[in-house]
Amino acid sequence: MSTLLIKNGTILTMNPAMDIIHGDIFIEDGVIVEIPTVKDQADQVIDASGKLVLPGFVQVHVHLNQTLFRGTADDMDVVDWLKRRIWPFEQVHSYESVYASARLSILEMIRSGTTTAVTMETLNHTEAAFQAADEMGFRAVIGNAIMDRWEAGTEMKGEDTQTALEKSMQLLREFHGKANGRLHYGFCPRGTRNATDELWQEVAKIAREEHVLVHSHAGENKEQTQRLSAYGGSEVEYLNKMGVLGPNLVIAHAIWLTDEEHDLLADSGTHVAHCPSANFKLASGIAPIPAMLAKGINVAIGADGAPCNNNLDAFVEMRRAALIHKPRFGPRSMSAEKVLQMMTMGGARAAGLDREIGSLEQGKKADLVLIDQDVPHAYPTIASSPVVRVVYEHQSRDVDTVIIDGEVVLQNGKPVHFDEMDILSQSNAALSDLLNRLSEPLRSEVIG
Amino acid sequence: MSTLLIKNGTILTMNPAMDIIHGDIFIEDGVIVEIPTVKDQADQVIDASGKLVLPGFVQVHVHLNQTLFRGTADDMDVVDWLKRRIWPFEQVHSYESVYASARLSILEMIRSGTTTAVTMETLNHTEAAFQAADEMGFRAVIGNAIMDRWEAGTEMKGEDTQTALEKSMQLLREFHGKANGRLHYGFCPRGTRNATDELWQEVAKIAREEHVLVHSHAGENKEQTQRLSAYGGSEVEYLNKMGVLGPNLVIAHAIWLTDEEHDLLADSGTHVAHCPSANFKLASGIAPIPAMLAKGINVAIGADGAPCNNNLDAFVEMRRAALIHKPRFGPRSMSAEKVLQMMTMGGARAAGLDREIGSLEQGKKADLVLIDQDVPHAYPTIASSPVVRVVYEHQSRDVDTVIIDGEVVLQNGKPVHFDEMDILSQSNAALSDLLNRLSEPLRSEVIG
Repeated sequence: MSTLLIKNGTILTMNPAMDIIHGDIFIEDGVIVEIPTVKDQADQVIDASGKLVLPGFVQVHVHLNQTLFRGTADDMDVVDWLKRRIWPFEQVHSYESVYASARLSILEMIRSGTTTAVTMETLNHTEAAFQAADEMGFRAVIGNAIMDRWEAGTEMKGEDTQTALEKSMQLLREFHGKANGRLHYGFCPRGTRNATDELWQEVAKIAREEHVLVHSHAGENKEQTQRLSAYGGSEVEYLNKMGVLGPNLVIAHAIWLTDEEHDLLADSGTHVAHCPSANFKLASGIAPIPAMLAKGINVAIGADGAPCNNNLDAFVEMRRAALIHKPRFGPRSMSAEKVLQMMTMGGARAAGLDREIGSLEQGKKADLVLIDQDVPHAYPTIASSPVVRVVYEHQSRDVDTVIIDGEVVLQNGKPVHFDEMDILSQSNAALSDLLNRLSEPLRSEVIG
Repeated sequence: MSTLLIKNGTILTMNPAMDIIHGDIFIEDGVIVEIPTVKDQADQVIDASGKLVLPGFVQVHVHLNQTLFRGTADDMDVVDWLKRRIWPFEQVHSYESVYASARLSILEMIRSGTTTAVTMETLNHTEAAFQAADEMGFRAVIGNAIMDRWEAGTEMKGEDTQTALEKSMQLLREFHGKANGRLHYGFCPRGTRNATDELWQEVAKIAREEHVLVHSHAGENKEQTQRLSAYGGSEVEYLNKMGVLGPNLVIAHAIWLTDEEHDLLADSGTHVAHCPSANFKLASGIAPIPAMLAKGINVAIGADGAPCNNNLDAFVEMRRAALIHKPRFGPRSMSAEKVLQMMTMGGARAAGLDREIGSLEQGKKADLVLIDQDVPHAYPTIASSPVVRVVYEHQSRDVDTVIIDGEVVLQNGKPVHFDEMDILSQSNAALSDLLNRLSEPLRSEVIG
């Protein structure tokens, strides 16, 4: 048995009462067993004096494999962004390049206090993403993209239904529940119309039987949403017909959905992954999150892919999620408290992990982040709430310690088990190799 | 004579050709004398290997005295925000509290690579803001708020015309051009209708004669803008009648101006201070910056006050300035390059200091920021532009060195000449004293 004691912190429990307590947390074998505790000895003791202690952040829409493409696709029209960057790049991914990209992503997320991510990868090499998460001690719900049907104009080569399903099933068998339960599989039909009816129905059935998440995109781009609806029914109506709506489905973006679609999401318990930075960067629009919350839809937050953000930073997304709705819905439409709930318990719920993570309560996994309060950009402290400071003021530079599953993975802002410069240089090398696999003239266009 | 050599950097000159050069910069007595240089000796040599070297950022709308109120006025309606926080707080400011607030502000700005700010203070104790800027080696255009006329409902007590003008004149005489030319005075009628016609006309005349900046607010809040226009003419038409439009006027926000007002700004060479975070936080709206740029208006950027942001961070504002216009104007409507120009030369122009700062060119003052490139959130680097990385990826945590007027004020991310913890603890103490000067029941409401 291994024990860990976090002492003297200001603990934002994010429990249903939103209790903030000053005290200690006792952890045994990666599980919170007493909060607060009077125990004063453990195998490892961490002094959290002057620090805020929060549940680790949960980002529910990320593409680990795309981080390698960061900075190669900026200020472009969306069609070019996909056709001249993301699709061709993903198609020449190798095991090594997905691995390098996933390691870089996880490093950045951990540095921003993110302890869990729900991710959608590409058609191949998703085992490399699992390997990176496993080795780096990260908690993740990872899925291979499913594309057995695609719109005219989608130049990414898809797969036949059986191949697509079999790849997912194999990854599910190999990784789901592994690494002390840190790794999970999640089915990822890329968009509502990127999978056939047959595949959607099969995925819905298996996911329910196996208690596995389904993770897709819907309502991201106005023109695309209108085009997809022309196939016969709105995107969410279509998902409803396929029988996949429900508490184990997360849809990313949800910008252009109708009131009727909101009702379907609310009634079914389907979760929304809000991506505030990406929706601005790609000029997609502003999702009506306050309206969805008012209907009782669970909304969580994700950075999406680095090429459309360009960070994977929980603080950047929280601040943005708190600010973007105010001009449209008013200054009180999105409180700091609500945003912090979305980034913790909201994320845990969307990931299907709310019994394990998302708050600091007895019996939950020890996924924690310690934030240094003594920083100029979050002072004075005497008349402000720590919740306000976390959402509007703190930055990832203030993340001092990150603990996942009871293991300290970041200490004094530095990774404990892996070498940062090694991950950086490998990302440059892997991108260089990947670009060399592109055909001309795209390769020259990108390299310049 | 003192010499400084910056070696081996990747220099984003921000000159008219936007040249990026790899090389060295030679500085003599605070002035760039050779760029690039082959000189290899100097009194002080800084190794910029692996770093980006940029002109220091210029923020053109900041309230130094309000930083002390950070985190006390969040998610509030705008009217409450002013009436129950900002106005009563400013009225009980002391020399000590303005000084503590200015020191905290300047510390935060320097840590984000900001080397110059154009600021509007309150009705009293503005000499404390000058003292802080002087001691900390910061470059600033600082002004005392002028309020000799106010709308019904403005509960902040104003002053008579002669008192208001005399206070400004005294500060102008005492500080303008001091500290080797780092300190400047700027007249600050608080809003278009917070000064009488007489005072606006007098300020316009003196400012032109003395080559001094005028800095005010216009077009921030939709309802307020409509109300002000009802007095007889739009805000910018009014400023035009007062004879104050021109290259030595900066107006903050400019969200709700008409096309005709844009034309007046463009024709007169008046500058706009864009405050992207504050405009969202106070639910004010989104200024049509791409449309103003298309008319040839010079737009610069500022964080505004900490209570409506809550950071004073150049990177946060640049990223936001690049993102917020895309949903409305398209993904190519605001490029990283344009934003970086606004934060450097655009700011220098607005401040009236474009012959001194804003770019790294021979003869300019040595105001520089060195950014560490080897960070996970800005990798890979081999196929991305440094301009894109600065605007979309880097954060203030990456600021390694800041030089103002040839003096190194931040090194390895730490202040050289002042104690960070001292500034933090003094800000808490000063806020505590200030809150004790509030009358009840406000005091209890704020302290909780």
